Order: sequence, then structure tokens, then C-alpha cells
Amino acid sequence: MSIYTVCQKSVVNVTPDTSVRFVAELMNSKNIGCVVIAEDQKPVGIVTDRDLALRRENFCTEGGDDEPVSRIMTREVCTIRKDTGIFDAIQEMKSSGVRRLPVVDAGGRLVGLITLDDIIRLLARELGEIARIIGKESPKI
Amino acid sequence: MSIYTVCQKSVVNVTPDTSVRFVAELMNSKNIGCVVIAEDQKPVGIVTDRDLALRRENFCTEGGDDEPVSRIMTREVCTIRKDTGIFDAIQEMKSSGVRRLPVVDAGGRLVGLITLDDIIRLLARELGEIARIIGKESPKI
Repeated sequence: MSIYTVCQKSVVNVTPDTSVRFVAELMNSKNIGCVVIAEDQKPVGIVTDRDLALRRENFCTEGGDDEPVSRIMTREVCTIRKDTGIFDAIQEMKSSGVRRLPVVDAGGRLVGLITLDDIIRLLARELGEIARIIGKESPKI
Repeated sequence: MSIYTVCQKSVVNVTPDTSVRFVAELMNSKNIGCVVIAEDQKPVGIVTDRDLALRRENFCTEGGDDEPVSRIMTREVCTIRKDTGIFDAIQEMKSSGVRRLPVVDAGGRLVGLITLDDIIRLLARELGEIARIIGKESPKI
């Protein structure tokens, strides 16, 4: 199974010049933990709610939340091809030390987002199906 | 198995008058996602990195990060007794809609913190043990 089957296809993304304030409002209104920063449909950064919490401490003296998100985003964003398998996606998260990976097509364009939560949900669903097989096969007590 | 067996016993906690800035520095230096707010050893609030990101937007005009954490903490903090079972802890997280629960003793004193990640780790360990049983029983190919 490729990660594109289970990833979120609708990814909230903004350009690098978007204000930190707007990104925070997006995370709040859409109830999401990260926003991908993209230019010409290609991911150039990523910012999480934790980044917003810990990287904008000195903003009060330097223009505050009107600063562009490019100032606090993670620039070396790890991405993953949409045809990658689940196991390889887990390996990539493990080696990169991240819980979220923007999903890209062969041209490097943003087409989705895969999170550790998505993968846990998939595994739980698979275990649920296994539980049903066991339930059917078990003797009635 | 009680949650006290698997929960984190060392919980980072501060008093309500601690500054938001200090709490952010704690989250950063200790690489943690939440801090419990306690008075006389009893939890009175909780604050996550997401709360720091989304609840301090107007701080620049109102005293900034020197404001006490009590201004942005969640006050109706759900706690869980240390002798609660894993299944009941999951139910509590589900009904409360939270991923982290401060663990308290019979006197309501803070003795730990249980997170969804801790429970997933436990389940993964149990599945790993099951995989080893299957591995031993399987015919050698």
C-alpha cells in the first residue's frame, strides 16, 4: 500500500511571506498542528505549532507576529514520494526524527501530508480487522 | 496493569505565577510538549506547546512573555488516579479529548503523567512480544 492511499490529500499551505500571525490563526481555525510552506507548489519549509511556541520569543521587539513565517520555518524539509510504501515512510520518519512528511509527486509538487497519527490509525484499523477475524473463528462461549 | 507502571514518574511542573517565557524555555530545554501547573503538589492547570503557540498572540501589547502562565493554562485539568487500568485511561482520554493526563495519588497529589505516546509505546512493545512468540512457533523456511 502506498502512502498516498492513507495520507491527507488536502494540505494547508502558504507562501514564505505569509505572516506568523496568519499561520497561527490557520492552525487554530482549522485545528491542525502544522502548515507546509510552498512556492510554485513545491514545499520549501514546514512550521508546527511547537515551532510557533518556541521560536518566536523575541518577536515582541522585532515586529511581532507580522514577521513572515519564513523566519521561523524549518527549511530543510524532508518530503516523501507519493508511491512510497508505509514501511519505508516509517523508516523515513525514524531517520529524520519527524512525525509529519509532506507528500510530493514525481515533479516534487505537494500533493499530501502523511503524519505518524495517520499511520497509527491505519495500523489500528488493520488490527481491528484482525480482531474481527479472530472473533468469527473463536468458539461461542 | 495500572497506568502508574507505564507513566512518566518525573513530571515537569511549575506554580501558576511562573512566567510564560520560563515555561517556553523549560519545554525547549527538556524537549517536552507540556508542563503541569501545580499548587501544594496538586494539579491546577496544564499548558501545552500548542497553547503557547495559539494563546499568547496579544501578549506583545500586554506585558509579553513575562505574564504568568496561569493566564493561558487550561484550568479544568482532567487527572487520573494512579491505580487506573490502561483501558480506562484510554477511555478517559477519549471522553476528555486529550492526549495527556496528569496522574495523581489518592490524595490528589501529582505523581506522574500519562500520554497517548506512552500507551502506544506499551501496545507496540506487547505486539513485539507477540511477534517473537509467532517467530518461535513458525516453521523454519
